[in-house]
Amino acid sequence: MTEHESGEQHKIEDVRITPVAFHDPPLLNTVGVHEPFAVRSIIEIVTDSGISGLGESYGDAAHLARLRGAATQLTGLDVWNTNELERRVGRSLSGENTTGGHGMSGMVTGSDTRYRVASPFEVACLDIQGKVLGRPVSDLLGGAVRDRVDYSAYLFYKWQGHPGAEPDGWGPALDPEQLVRQATTMIGEYGFSAIKLKGGVFPPEEEIDAVLALRQAFPGLPLRIDPNGAWSVPASIEVGRRLEGVLEYLEDPTPGIEGMAEVAREVPMPLATNMCVVAFDHLPPPPPPPPAVASDAVRIVLSDHHFWGGLGRSRLLAGLCDTFGLGLSMHSNSHLGISLAAMTHLAAATPSLGYACDTHWPWKDPDEDVIAAGALSFSGGAVAVPTAPGLGVELDTDALARLHEQYLGCGITERDDTAYLRRFQPAFDPTPPRW
Amino acid sequence: MTEHESGEQHKIEDVRITPVAFHDPPLLNTVGVHEPFAVRSIIEIVTDSGISGLGESYGDAAHLARLRGAATQLTGLDVWNTNELERRVGRSLSGENTTGGHGMSGMVTGSDTRYRVASPFEVACLDIQGKVLGRPVSDLLGGAVRDRVDYSAYLFYKWQGHPGAEPDGWGPALDPEQLVRQATTMIGEYGFSAIKLKGGVFPPEEEIDAVLALRQAFPGLPLRIDPNGAWSVPASIEVGRRLEGVLEYLEDPTPGIEGMAEVAREVPMPLATNMCVVAFDHLPPPPPPPPAVASDAVRIVLSDHHFWGGLGRSRLLAGLCDTFGLGLSMHSNSHLGISLAAMTHLAAATPSLGYACDTHWPWKDPDEDVIAAGALSFSGGAVAVPTAPGLGVELDTDALARLHEQYLGCGITERDDTAYLRRFQPAFDPTPPRW
Ligand SMILES: [Mg+2]
Ligand SMILES: [Mg+2]
Repeated sequence: MTEHESGEQHKIEDVRITPVAFHDPPLLNTVGVHEPFAVRSIIEIVTDSGISGLGESYGDAAHLARLRGAATQLTGLDVWNTNELERRVGRSLSGENTTGGHGMSGMVTGSDTRYRVASPFEVACLDIQGKVLGRPVSDLLGGAVRDRVDYSAYLFYKWQGHPGAEPDGWGPALDPEQLVRQATTMIGEYGFSAIKLKGGVFPPEEEIDAVLALRQAFPGLPLRIDPNGAWSVPASIEVGRRLEGVLEYLEDPTPGIEGMAEVAREVPMPLATNMCVVAFDHLPPPPPPPPAVASDAVRIVLSDHHFWGGLGRSRLLAGLCDTFGLGLSMHSNSHLGISLAAMTHLAAATPSLGYACDTHWPWKDPDEDVIAAGALSFSGGAVAVPTAPGLGVELDTDALARLHEQYLGCGITERDDTAYLRRFQPAFDPTPPRW
Repeated sequence: MTEHESGEQHKIEDVRITPVAFHDPPLLNTVGVHEPFAVRSIIEIVTDSGISGLGESYGDAAHLARLRGAATQLTGLDVWNTNELERRVGRSLSGENTTGGHGMSGMVTGSDTRYRVASPFEVACLDIQGKVLGRPVSDLLGGAVRDRVDYSAYLFYKWQGHPGAEPDGWGPALDPEQLVRQATTMIGEYGFSAIKLKGGVFPPEEEIDAVLALRQAFPGLPLRIDPNGAWSVPASIEVGRRLEGVLEYLEDPTPGIEGMAEVAREVPMPLATNMCVVAFDHLPPPPPPPPAVASDAVRIVLSDHHFWGGLGRSRLLAGLCDTFGLGLSMHSNSHLGISLAAMTHLAAATPSLGYACDTHWPWKDPDEDVIAAGALSFSGGAVAVPTAPGLGVELDTDALARLHEQYLGCGITERDDTAYLRRFQPAFDPTPPRW
């Protein structure tokens, strides 16, 4: 095996947060108009090994204060430990009860403060992980499944320039014709293959006309409109019906899940949102009545990486259970040391695991395994989490050969507890319910 | 910055699958009794860089055939690309219509074949990733939040030995007294701090007595019983009521979500399962009526890593949406190049993203950014996914200083589109619905 760096630590030594401002045109939306500058925060994390990583977030004052408070808690944190990062950010916010700082001018306010604050630090940690490894961040997310990412042409109604300033290069966009011109310029420069119009600025009738003009000018491109919840339910339904066959999706026509549900029942296109579902606790169906996950039949899921698709998918299951308020335990059937190592790593890194895990380990002959002895041991009913690279277990090839010989010799190629029992109790019938 | 290995590839060169058998005692369950050997498959993946990783799974013949079929598709795969791994495994199974090979003697049959087959390869890839990085697998899962993992003492009714063989060291366990003796031996050796009894073997009355005997012998330890769905709904309710205050959870008393729901309404302890929820598509509530996520109000969620907690959490959101049949698009507000890089990596690595992402990029002055030019560019409306280490963007410290000066000078510390518009249109009222 190639020798690689052995568990080198990369601990956070310094976190720099710099608010910045950049010019923004007078883009109109339903709550007002963009100010002459957009403000953002630039996050730099530097490790004790001298590697730096970048993150970016909102620049609003209340958010900046929270970022700075969180940053003081991060010194010494290993950049791989994003679970601990979330915990420390949460702790830094306990007792925090200022409002604001959502960064979107009141249009999206329901997002989770902890996750909003943790986000740029997590991104910077992933940046550092990638640099340590010599790999792009997408590799750390399971690998790129596409090598180009499509963005949409984001059209705005706009003034010709900020009041008191010269007109900007884009010019005004206050009617369908000017919007089509804006789209033509933008698509000419960037080549976008989909178009989104920020609406909620003029009466729906005018915005319908704008969408229809875009459809005519760009017949092949998917279209979306997003009025940021500016429309009543009846107005939304009217727009949806008028734009049947024209929109790829209709984004946040009206505020709130209930209004959206009313609209969804009456319009032909799917509704999209970044306003009424912006945090994990918005996903479960609301009580009462309790149409929770499968009628609350189950309160604890025993995960098992063998049938849930591995460790990454098992982490997804853990997140699903956490989101839906389900508990998490771990299932086992007869297994060897490789699986015990994998189960132990998964359990170690799953914060929401709330129960001692199942294992068949004691039922296995201690002399029978395929891994070299010594990597895993029980004390107090627990297995210490391996800290060696990878799973932390090594194959014992002699032992593997021995158990393979045993496989060839034993004649069992399909587990069948029932057939085996019937050899001794021919009348045995396992059909449930047995009692 | 420290120099690290730069994007070294670790591609799968060889996959070895070895079925093994190890001795198993005559453990009783509701479908029969364990055969004299348990069979497992041992997976070794070797990369072209000479690093090997281990995985372990079921050894049943049908599963082995599927593993071998999938293995032929994995040559050349980068071990970081677990998204592609899942895709190739899925492809290898298309048209596959054999049954069986669930590895659990008919007790768990609803798990997803694709995930069951992908799992040991994913684990082996993570093992290799960890070795390349010199870090334990738990670090690749977000970092260990505990350094010891508790397992439970897994008690079984059992015969004294396999028929025709000598009694094994554990002796028989066919009544409460013998089970308590088994627990004492096992806890004496392993130190377990929780106890699970595999039930469904004897009439519920006898198993209740066994649980009560365990409670008396181990007053401080949480207890569970798992009859693998062997009981009718009334029998399950009877057991649940009799064991009020005694069980930590009651595992799969009866088959199926509907029966479990009936039992759950009548018993005091939570129900747990590894039988009726074993695949992602078991989690959404069943139609009809459609109590799907928030009344189907929304069919597409626009993710945004800034408020969903970063890239890892955004991947969780993608998995949730995928599980619940929701579409996924991406939201944006005014941002700089660090966020564009993060958004692009996330989008690149999210298979279920089905729409062109939002971006405010064209509205930003091209000369204003905090990153060195050249890393990100649009063509055909798309951004090529950076392949340099990490996010693939570098901070331009002069540009950062310039935009920070601009922040200090511009006087905007809180985005407020409404107040800005009111300076020019004092009567403006954004309260929705506006139309
Ligand atoms: Mg929106
Ligand atoms: Mg079970």
